[in-house]
Amino acid sequence: MAISRDRDERSVLVLGIDPGTAVTGYGVVARRCGGAVSLVECGVIRTSAGQPLARRIREIYLEVVGLIDRHAPFAVSVENVFQGKNARSALTLGHARGAILLAVALQDIPIAEYSPAEIKKAVTGTGRATKDQVGFMVQQQLRLEEAPSPADAADGVAAALCHCLAGSFPR
Amino acid sequence: MAISRDRDERSVLVLGIDPGTAVTGYGVVARRCGGAVSLVECGVIRTSAGQPLARRIREIYLEVVGLIDRHAPFAVSVENVFQGKNARSALTLGHARGAILLAVALQDIPIAEYSPAEIKKAVTGTGRATKDQVGFMVQQQLRLEEAPSPADAADGVAAALCHCLAGSFPR
Repeated sequence: MAISRDRDERSVLVLGIDPGTAVTGYGVVARRCGGAVSLVECGVIRTSAGQPLARRIREIYLEVVGLIDRHAPFAVSVENVFQGKNARSALTLGHARGAILLAVALQDIPIAEYSPAEIKKAVTGTGRATKDQVGFMVQQQLRLEEAPSPADAADGVAAALCHCLAGSFPR
Repeated sequence: MAISRDRDERSVLVLGIDPGTAVTGYGVVARRCGGAVSLVECGVIRTSAGQPLARRIREIYLEVVGLIDRHAPFAVSVENVFQGKNARSALTLGHARGAILLAVALQDIPIAEYSPAEIKKAVTGTGRATKDQVGFMVQQQLRLEEAPSPADAADGVAAALCHCLAGSFPR
């Protein structure tokens, strides 16, 4: 969903991505030079489990390329999955994450990687926050009428927000 | 290493790939319309563990794109890793494999996937063959003076050979 177009010339954009083979969440956050943040766009990229993996990651790649083309982000913040998944699902997830990193790396855009706990801590103050808490704090910090939906979109926004708070930016 | 340029107009080329983050092996095999096979090129793509993962998979992607540009393969045969790796290394390997599948899928080239056991069985007659046996049988079947080296290159060639033996081709 496109939420707002709150951007001025002294702001930079951060694209945040929560990678997944079935659902990849993303959020584009504008960070003004003083540090104020606002949401530009967020959403999810869904792929069908019935498709071959190569086609699914191609879809994810092309969507991320489209986001980069549209927003020309200053940096991309990618969630550094992962907690206790089994090897088979980790391999599949790696394919999706590889396609995302590649889309960014081929454009020579800086990539920041944060663990789920780092993102939760930056956004809510605790690395053990629930999905609902993340959604609520994203809503508060970006002054939205409601939390981004679905939760994967909120996770993408949270990844972007985390880098806005923790990353280095031009003055 | 480029071994020969044994190709005529009635042959199709198969690119075989054994994916790895540190070392990806590949081989290009020409299959004549009667089924005779010969080696066109084989080698390895090495990336440095000191580089960020995004840069490493970008290197792998660009090398595979280069192979596709040079040889215009009819199909690409990719080893469907994996046996008993842990989740962390599976995730990393998935990134490399994702970059490879993406390079192929973006060109709309058919992808065939075979397990290590399927490749070994097609090339040596047994799914439990050792690396040396695979190298030896690749050498025999392609009438080479020696086995492709390093072993990862032989594994790439074996993946191509497996598809030449098991895949469907135009008459």
